Amino acid sequence: MTAPRTATTFAPPVMEARRWLDGITFPVDRPLINVSQAAPVEPPHPDMRRAMADAVLEDDSAHLYGPVLGMPALRTTLAARTARIYGGSVAPEQIAITSGCNQAFAAAIAALCGEGDEVIIPVPWYFNHKMWLDMAGATSVPLACDGTLLPDPAQAADLITPRTRAIVLVTPNNPTGREYPDGLVRAFYDLCRSHGIALIVDETYRDFHAGSDAPHSLFTQADWDETLIHLYSFSKAYRLTGHRIGAIAAAPALLAEIEKFLDTVAICPNQVGQSAALWGMQNLDQWLAAERSEILTRRAAITTNMPALATQEWKLLGLGGYFAYLQHPFVMSSAQLAPLMVAQAGILCLPGTMFYPQNHSDGEAELRIAFANLDAGGIATLFARLATLDLPHR
Amino acid sequence: MTAPRTATTFAPPVMEARRWLDGITFPVDRPLINVSQAAPVEPPHPDMRRAMADAVLEDDSAHLYGPVLGMPALRTTLAARTARIYGGSVAPEQIAITSGCNQAFAAAIAALCGEGDEVIIPVPWYFNHKMWLDMAGATSVPLACDGTLLPDPAQAADLITPRTRAIVLVTPNNPTGREYPDGLVRAFYDLCRSHGIALIVDETYRDFHAGSDAPHSLFTQADWDETLIHLYSFSKAYRLTGHRIGAIAAAPALLAEIEKFLDTVAICPNQVGQSAALWGMQNLDQWLAAERSEILTRRAAITTNMPALATQEWKLLGLGGYFAYLQHPFVMSSAQLAPLMVAQAGILCLPGTMFYPQNHSDGEAELRIAFANLDAGGIATLFARLATLDLPHR
Repeated sequence: MTAPRTATTFAPPVMEARRWLDGITFPVDRPLINVSQAAPVEPPHPDMRRAMADAVLEDDSAHLYGPVLGMPALRTTLAARTARIYGGSVAPEQIAITSGCNQAFAAAIAALCGEGDEVIIPVPWYFNHKMWLDMAGATSVPLACDGTLLPDPAQAADLITPRTRAIVLVTPNNPTGREYPDGLVRAFYDLCRSHGIALIVDETYRDFHAGSDAPHSLFTQADWDETLIHLYSFSKAYRLTGHRIGAIAAAPALLAEIEKFLDTVAICPNQVGQSAALWGMQNLDQWLAAERSEILTRRAAITTNMPALATQEWKLLGLGGYFAYLQHPFVMSSAQLAPLMVAQAGILCLPGTMFYPQNHSDGEAELRIAFANLDAGGIATLFARLATLDLPHR
Repeated sequence: MTAPRTATTFAPPVMEARRWLDGITFPVDRPLINVSQAAPVEPPHPDMRRAMADAVLEDDSAHLYGPVLGMPALRTTLAARTARIYGGSVAPEQIAITSGCNQAFAAAIAALCGEGDEVIIPVPWYFNHKMWLDMAGATSVPLACDGTLLPDPAQAADLITPRTRAIVLVTPNNPTGREYPDGLVRAFYDLCRSHGIALIVDETYRDFHAGSDAPHSLFTQADWDETLIHLYSFSKAYRLTGHRIGAIAAAPALLAEIEKFLDTVAICPNQVGQSAALWGMQNLDQWLAAERSEILTRRAAITTNMPALATQEWKLLGLGGYFAYLQHPFVMSSAQLAPLMVAQAGILCLPGTMFYPQNHSDGEAELRIAFANLDAGGIATLFARLATLDLPHR
């Protein structure tokens, strides 16, 4: 008897972590600090809300089916924006809009992989990628990172088999925050190109990259779309998580395949979210720049607070995007520590073990802190609470 | 080399049909009659639009991630409504909200089937079901219908193998419009129950059922959720196609499996659409009753116009929900006829061949007419144009 697809994978970690809160009350003077999910908790810009309300009230097409691959104006605008940010040439026909960036990943895998095919992903990995690959019947091949949390293209080359269909990079990385240098991304691109496999680059956190230049040069490559599949999310930049809008940049022929998947799993992305994403790109550049600047300030606060915690043998392994990736000094596994931290310190974060293959000791010393919703004061409080954890050291 | 999942299926038929319009202009006095897609073209009730705008402007949570299985108030309200309509007992924990009813089907299949498993579906079938099963690596086993377009449970029993995981019924049916009698649905339920397989009942067009009683008695069965997986759509009833909101009623343990699929493919249904669906159930019962009455009037207009067309050897095979299913008298296949009708008669509809296994002669004499957007006058015009088609008869 074959197992159903869903039985081949684990339960959503974010929902599991939410259940650790059950039955716990937090004192008024020490409310919960929730750094478990990488999502803005503030609503979008008020002018964007008004634009969405106008669409709902005045644009009849906001309520009707649209094209499977997304609103033409949104595809055109994102194509032009992508070309502007990265240089190179990106046509509207190379863009598809999806119901969130998780769906963009799922659609890409459906167009690349059949049962038993393999996909190489650096670990720690984003658990939803692993879950989808499990359910798609594809094998996730873990690629270890070095001490700076960067993967090595030469090591990846050794993992490539005749069943390999793609390598997946997430930059800035989830969970580690690590921003992959252009040279490294290019080396992976060249590796994939020479093997005729796809390079999937997920840049959900791109708008909070610390660098002022283009994050990478892949789009300037001639025929980039023969190798690159680029994933993007409007959720973080414009605070649109509840609207589920993401995007794929890829070859038109691949998007025609992806259209089959999106047609059956979604029919089309919702129209209100699409109109918001379009409005955001047309009107919020300055606001987004300020948002980025604030995230970078918060990131700097992590660096400022780290030395005091380091005296207790904590270590900062990675920092960037929405994430700080910490090494804790305790003898217990992060899988036990994280639920314990809810009651002991009023902190909800995810253990490193959630970002590695199961039944594996990797990640036991690691914690992911999604810091983006904490201002500098909140980060100081978070670090002060981490310092109070009184448990046996390794 | 394994084919990628998307390569195992065909391109979206609705998008293909849209391309038949390319390059054709329609005279002002004979505009296109588009009866190809089963979707309202009018926007939702104005009060619902105002409620959605209010949510966008005033409810911050409308912009944030929600639970994977949907907004609790929506699950609770749909559970109570389902229990009221069908009798029996339905708990909020037995309801999940999805990003449209296609996604509800995809999620159910992911929780039931692994590679090589089988699902029995009456033909003609809804092509998106076939497409998803192809991409899921499951085999669609066609179950022939009789002359009245009803499937036979005894014949279905003969098709059950150790790999069979479910039987799928769509009632009112897409594409035939046929409303399955309760006795028949119950016979399929009993068959599935005795074999320990699932019965998936897709009632996307339920709200336009001609009967005044509950469409079936399955929810009154003790332990209905051990066998039944019920799919519903808010798109047709409340004119919310552009918002992508559907639902599943099933066992809580199965929904926990479905949660894995929905988490990775959608994270959550969009919040604005969910708030609209909730508002609709709370406020639009009377309006919906009038909508249903209007659809039934249009359905009656099909019956009124049919005799004239029958003199030219056309036949009405099925009628209900949004659909009339016609047999044309011409010697050519509907696959050739349907594109030809665009230029010759200014009619866009889907050929029966799209609703059968490919490389098969079934459906060649059949056409699906999604009539719901035509009023009685529009239906008279449609039938007048069908009568002008001057082609060799069989």
